[in-house]
Amino acid sequence: MSYEKLDLQPFFDTVDELKPQFIERLRKAIAIPSVSADETLRPQVVKMAHFLVDELKSLGFHDIQLKDLGTQPPPVADPKLQLPPIVLARFGSNPDKKTVLVYGHYDVQPALKDDGWATEPFEMTLNEAQDIMYGRGTTDDKGPVIGWLNVIEAHNKLGWELPVNLVVCFEGMEESGSLGLDKLVEDEANQYFKGVDQVTISDNYWLGTKKPVLTYGLRGCNYYQIIVEGPGADLHSGIFGGIIAEPMTDLVHLMGELVDNKGKILIPGVYDMVAPLTDKEDALYDNIDFSVDELNAASGSETALHENKKDILKHRWRYPSLSLHGIEGAFSGAGAKTVIPAKVVGKFSIRTVPDIDSGKLDQLVFEHVTKKWQELGSKNKFKVELIHDGNYWVSNPFNKAFTAASHATQDVWNVVPDMTREGGSIPITLTFEKALGVDVLLLPMGRGDDGAHSINEKLDVPNYINGCKTLGGFLHYYGRGE
Amino acid sequence: MSYEKLDLQPFFDTVDELKPQFIERLRKAIAIPSVSADETLRPQVVKMAHFLVDELKSLGFHDIQLKDLGTQPPPVADPKLQLPPIVLARFGSNPDKKTVLVYGHYDVQPALKDDGWATEPFEMTLNEAQDIMYGRGTTDDKGPVIGWLNVIEAHNKLGWELPVNLVVCFEGMEESGSLGLDKLVEDEANQYFKGVDQVTISDNYWLGTKKPVLTYGLRGCNYYQIIVEGPGADLHSGIFGGIIAEPMTDLVHLMGELVDNKGKILIPGVYDMVAPLTDKEDALYDNIDFSVDELNAASGSETALHENKKDILKHRWRYPSLSLHGIEGAFSGAGAKTVIPAKVVGKFSIRTVPDIDSGKLDQLVFEHVTKKWQELGSKNKFKVELIHDGNYWVSNPFNKAFTAASHATQDVWNVVPDMTREGGSIPITLTFEKALGVDVLLLPMGRGDDGAHSINEKLDVPNYINGCKTLGGFLHYYGRGE
Repeated sequence: MSYEKLDLQPFFDTVDELKPQFIERLRKAIAIPSVSADETLRPQVVKMAHFLVDELKSLGFHDIQLKDLGTQPPPVADPKLQLPPIVLARFGSNPDKKTVLVYGHYDVQPALKDDGWATEPFEMTLNEAQDIMYGRGTTDDKGPVIGWLNVIEAHNKLGWELPVNLVVCFEGMEESGSLGLDKLVEDEANQYFKGVDQVTISDNYWLGTKKPVLTYGLRGCNYYQIIVEGPGADLHSGIFGGIIAEPMTDLVHLMGELVDNKGKILIPGVYDMVAPLTDKEDALYDNIDFSVDELNAASGSETALHENKKDILKHRWRYPSLSLHGIEGAFSGAGAKTVIPAKVVGKFSIRTVPDIDSGKLDQLVFEHVTKKWQELGSKNKFKVELIHDGNYWVSNPFNKAFTAASHATQDVWNVVPDMTREGGSIPITLTFEKALGVDVLLLPMGRGDDGAHSINEKLDVPNYINGCKTLGGFLHYYGRGE
Repeated sequence: MSYEKLDLQPFFDTVDELKPQFIERLRKAIAIPSVSADETLRPQVVKMAHFLVDELKSLGFHDIQLKDLGTQPPPVADPKLQLPPIVLARFGSNPDKKTVLVYGHYDVQPALKDDGWATEPFEMTLNEAQDIMYGRGTTDDKGPVIGWLNVIEAHNKLGWELPVNLVVCFEGMEESGSLGLDKLVEDEANQYFKGVDQVTISDNYWLGTKKPVLTYGLRGCNYYQIIVEGPGADLHSGIFGGIIAEPMTDLVHLMGELVDNKGKILIPGVYDMVAPLTDKEDALYDNIDFSVDELNAASGSETALHENKKDILKHRWRYPSLSLHGIEGAFSGAGAKTVIPAKVVGKFSIRTVPDIDSGKLDQLVFEHVTKKWQELGSKNKFKVELIHDGNYWVSNPFNKAFTAASHATQDVWNVVPDMTREGGSIPITLTFEKALGVDVLLLPMGRGDDGAHSINEKLDVPNYINGCKTLGGFLHYYGRGE
């Protein structure tokens, strides 16, 4: 911990003092069921935007805008359905200070008590014995969003000036594909977002449950489908079995040529594009708090493909993987149905890492699958295509923002945070990096077991309160020029 | 046509004369939506049973019984739901005559106009230009069931004695698994069905649209599932892709070891059990009215695995086939979902033929799949099991009943019928054969394009009227001792 510490204790004390108010603010936010995936709840998503606007106003934000994104594109039940607005606001505009843009989302995943929740998902429940807050959105992503507001409240109460200019960008469609966000970010890059020096996103989680992390990398994802089509309609296997070429048979053979059951991708050329592992990078994995047992606990099984922590983390973060997700058009119900499916669509995706070129990967996939198809010599029709792609992202974990966040974390948690990557993707990270041409920092608040998209979503009170301290502390160290 | 013809012309003329009444009788039957799969329509199925009882009474049947089968086993919405009764009745009981049992079913497949029907499915529509009757149940199986009643009406009108004793067994659950029928047939084998010499079932179809057929064989079906289970719940492929053993990958590899894409079963020993093709059997296929074009028309594609009529028919009728039906538990929707399914169940079935031993086949399947599983060396859990089986059936196409049916067909249609088999199964055939220890004849009335389970189900008027003549003629030739 060899860095010049700032005296942030008064700020930290104020956050502790305001803890009841901060919990109350989050409770109000959780009470609004802003489920973006449910059209009937769209008014609640809009209500949540207005709740934020009111809070931002009362805290002294200015230039507050509700950005209209127009109607939601199909498929929708109501063709006039409006997208929820994006909330933009500023706190401070001193040209001598750096400007930090913080992104968060105020919509949440669907949740019903009947799904198996122990408590009402939209009534935040504080379990005082556990020191945990339960409720949909506590960790994903209302806790962090409200956290930024709490940072301002503590500064206001303390009479402290914010060390940076803050720009907030809160969207209401993140759980439903962030519709409209990319365009807004590009449109505002030289307008509302002009002058932004750095983007911070608090919308992911610690690797485990004990040690804070900063996240500097994400895998990308290219999602493909193989379509095999034969008869004009589904047929009866009694009448047609043995006399026509069955699409399922072709598809299963093709899907078997993509990946072996040890996780090795069978498409030639893919691994050639992966950046070599340097000694320096290899060393980064040494101290990370993780174990095979934690993986087994997370997967609920003993199916780990690798036997030590470092190999697991490397295969999650810095090597590509290929998963077979399923087949559309085949029999998928319980029981027995003697159908020959007429058209089947096999779905698979490849998680991408540096330096895989997305376009080149598509080409390798298409060539390989087409070659295997030709070897089959089938009378059916065949197509392989990309459904969607999103690039990987890797930042420099030693840049100013990561250093500032590391110092703030050490001040709050008394430990050097692990520098982690994630196996999944957060597409908006790349959008901000590209559109604004600045570095992005992923600064998570919650723990790895928060259950972001599951029942009984939670946020530990220490993570919430210390999270607020870390967010604020980061602004101070970053504002100092760390 | 070297057989001693009976003079059935008066009977045939009477059938022609009664054609309007026969069409009217079928119209009344079609108007009752006796859909066995729809619990809310169960009273209509029962109504249909009572309609038959009234008809049977007025035609002079005796010993009419409605056999109560008790409540329908789960899964049902209403746990007290009663199974529809089986209708039993006799016409004649002369110990000097042979006794023929005729089986049919009075329930039908579901049908809604909105499914795409050109006419109301439960209002029989007679298209006079086409000479076709449209409606749910016209061909499957109300046409044939009513056909037997028409035979009696014609004899009554003519004042002819029936050449055999007739026993009818009409069930109301055939389209829903024939629940309760097996037990009833076994229970009544030495009771109501005592003395039965022969069973005739008219519940299948001509191979094509022009030439009448008699059916002497059916393939059996053994239906299996392979279960591969790993993680405790579905996982995110970003987080777990590349670090755990994925059940889908294992399953796809196993399913790829079952059948090649030319239809060849890859399980060792299966073909060794298939009865060798004799020259005599081979010759049977020579004259059958069928072509590759007809197969292509039926499949709506050009995906035939064999290039000539005989090979196609042999692979439909006398060789086994293996179809991959689908996967339960994997992603099966449209679009893209980045899931690693936790538990996947692959479904496949094998159509069986003489002399495949069903139990031995199970053993070969289990051994093969287990061996391939062991080769994979996976950390997941695995199981392979039989879901259900039903044996193949083959009769002697030169026995008395087939000979009688052939003569009747020649009298009516002026052509020697094709002796066919079917690729699918009609389990009740075996039930009667085993329980009563007598031969079974499949004597179809409708054509191959009747669309039994589809929209716009139809029965051509010539098939209905000539079908009645053939059913009646069969009784005469069989009663004579053919």
